[in-house]
Amino acid sequence: MGWVTERRRVIRIRDGAVSTRPDTLVAEEPLEIRLGGKPLAITMRTPGDDFALAAGFLVSEGVLASAGELANIVYCAGATGEGGSNSYNVVDVRLAEGVPVPDITLERNVYTTSSCGLCGKASLDAVRTTTRWPLDTSPETPVRIEPATLSALPDRLRSAQRVFERTGGLHAAALFTTDGELLDIREDVGRHNAVDKIVGRALQQGQLPLSSCVLMVSGRASFELVQKAVMAGIPVLAAVSAPSSLAVDLAVETGLTLVGFLRGASMNVYAGEHRLALSAAASTD
Amino acid sequence: MGWVTERRRVIRIRDGAVSTRPDTLVAEEPLEIRLGGKPLAITMRTPGDDFALAAGFLVSEGVLASAGELANIVYCAGATGEGGSNSYNVVDVRLAEGVPVPDITLERNVYTTSSCGLCGKASLDAVRTTTRWPLDTSPETPVRIEPATLSALPDRLRSAQRVFERTGGLHAAALFTTDGELLDIREDVGRHNAVDKIVGRALQQGQLPLSSCVLMVSGRASFELVQKAVMAGIPVLAAVSAPSSLAVDLAVETGLTLVGFLRGASMNVYAGEHRLALSAAASTD
Repeated sequence: MGWVTERRRVIRIRDGAVSTRPDTLVAEEPLEIRLGGKPLAITMRTPGDDFALAAGFLVSEGVLASAGELANIVYCAGATGEGGSNSYNVVDVRLAEGVPVPDITLERNVYTTSSCGLCGKASLDAVRTTTRWPLDTSPETPVRIEPATLSALPDRLRSAQRVFERTGGLHAAALFTTDGELLDIREDVGRHNAVDKIVGRALQQGQLPLSSCVLMVSGRASFELVQKAVMAGIPVLAAVSAPSSLAVDLAVETGLTLVGFLRGASMNVYAGEHRLALSAAASTD
Repeated sequence: MGWVTERRRVIRIRDGAVSTRPDTLVAEEPLEIRLGGKPLAITMRTPGDDFALAAGFLVSEGVLASAGELANIVYCAGATGEGGSNSYNVVDVRLAEGVPVPDITLERNVYTTSSCGLCGKASLDAVRTTTRWPLDTSPETPVRIEPATLSALPDRLRSAQRVFERTGGLHAAALFTTDGELLDIREDVGRHNAVDKIVGRALQQGQLPLSSCVLMVSGRASFELVQKAVMAGIPVLAAVSAPSSLAVDLAVETGLTLVGFLRGASMNVYAGEHRLALSAAASTD
């Protein structure tokens, strides 16, 4: 079974000086997610929170939406690593009785429900029609957030990243209240895995939809991350760096508030600005 | 058909001042890769160099190793986007006559050949046994590179990134000679796509294996990127940020030179240090 970090020998070169020392690296191992015994997807992830990762992945794919729909998740005992031991790298998810097993064609496992592979428009349509909790796009929505609150999130995210400090090699995703209180943070070699772990834990704790939360991610905002936020019912996604065009399109389509380049008092709002107290920001800051 | 960048409206907040203006975003669209008409994988990519991306992906998966094994690549005319037009988001790769179609079980499309899903050890074994060009692990290998040459690469990579300047949302991969001359650079929302595009173009031009080249990537070095370098016969992989544990393990296993945290005159060497002129660096810098 893997660990969150591992030690390896490294040769350091600093202005021509060469030295050898042990270095802490972020662990990366494949995780195979099975649904009712059938292989569904393989992701390269940082070990830990594997059941949450599997559950969150299935929320993103529209298979799961509540804890009651989940019977259990187990490590497959037959999956052997070195020396015949359990590798803890294969999990099997069993749905509760009566929950329909989705028609997931194994020809297209990841993005099965989120993309037909034909065009971005179809991908947008798929998420819009699949989500169980359409985001509130009305200007009178109860979720409102101050730009100053958003501005404080990157520092809180970074200070809560325990593994990044040691390895420099991790992405992070964090869930905040609209008042900026940290609810959960996960780190992983894959940004999408970190989000899946957060959403999966919320599902396990019966907290979906996360309709009063802000999801913050290190780095960029891709289509996939917007999809995961929408499928979990999260109304606000903030990223340190740039979004892609399809990420913005999906945010506009679903009414998600998408903030990018969130750095101190500066940010870009790409969609869903009705949730931001913009006039207050303009007058008070 | 998509473009490398797209324009969207953005609301900018700068120290409380709110303004609206158009913004340039990196384009992201799904690409479905088919092999002999059968769906193989879907990747979210920045449009452009799609045939190279498909070819490079198949090099990474051990399907292709030379231009002669490739019959042709076409956009599927039947794939319709908005309004019934070709979406240019589905490509079909046809292998040359006599080239065996791999036993790619569609249950596990991506990572099919590179991971059995059981453990990292198996993933390492799969790459080691699949690659057509075992890297030279002998200390007498002809490929030698000066640390000072590596130190110059990040600036060259950044100055060659045309799209990043406008969007801030792209990864880049670049191919250099061991003297630091830039041979090719590709940008994409996905780092792995950028590498596939470089490797695919090299295949199309009959340049595999890239045994006298250095591959440089923005960001981190994952298992997947090490795999792609090894499968293309590239002996040196340098990254701006951290590698993962499995990336280092695969580099050690295959003899790849893996450099991380390459920033100015500082770098960490995780594997394959016999290709670096370390004593010269220690004495002359």
